[in-house]
Amino acid sequence: ADIEQGRQKAAVCVACHGADGIAVIAEYPNLAGQKVKYLQLAIKAYRDGERRHAVMSPMASGLSEQDIADIAAFYASLPPAGNSAAK
Amino acid sequence: ADIEQGRQKAAVCVACHGADGIAVIAEYPNLAGQKVKYLQLAIKAYRDGERRHAVMSPMASGLSEQDIADIAAFYASLPPAGNSAAK
Repeated sequence: ADIEQGRQKAAVCVACHGADGIAVIAEYPNLAGQKVKYLQLAIKAYRDGERRHAVMSPMASGLSEQDIADIAAFYASLPPAGNSAAK
Repeated sequence: ADIEQGRQKAAVCVACHGADGIAVIAEYPNLAGQKVKYLQLAIKAYRDGERRHAVMSPMASGLSEQDIADIAAFYASLPPAGNSAAK
């Protein structure tokens, strides 16, 4: 997986999950420092319809295996407390 | 919500999610410092069948609203990097 590629592919995720992986919306999860395997499984669950969410389902639907690996690697690589360490 | 109550009620969660909220299994999410509202929504999704998982569904099935609030508050209160800061 390519973290730098993941950073670019995650440009669309930043609006909700934050550039530092700390979600800007209380109902959405922080992704910073999350388990990379779990992130892959969660994205695939939205892509494959196992999980359904108005925003995440369409977001995930177009992603390739490589995209998912890169995006998951990017967020997993971020410091868990994020930049602003805002909860 | 009562964090101390949440710590006790989360005794059964520790086996997978860790006492410090850093999951011991790569496929399971870290919960330390996660958004409290997101944690509540995720637990309810397992309790109400919106999400289905061999372990989480039965775990969540018996939880009351108060249990969910306390457990979510407990894990949200933990430092995001956990004790060992192991990824």
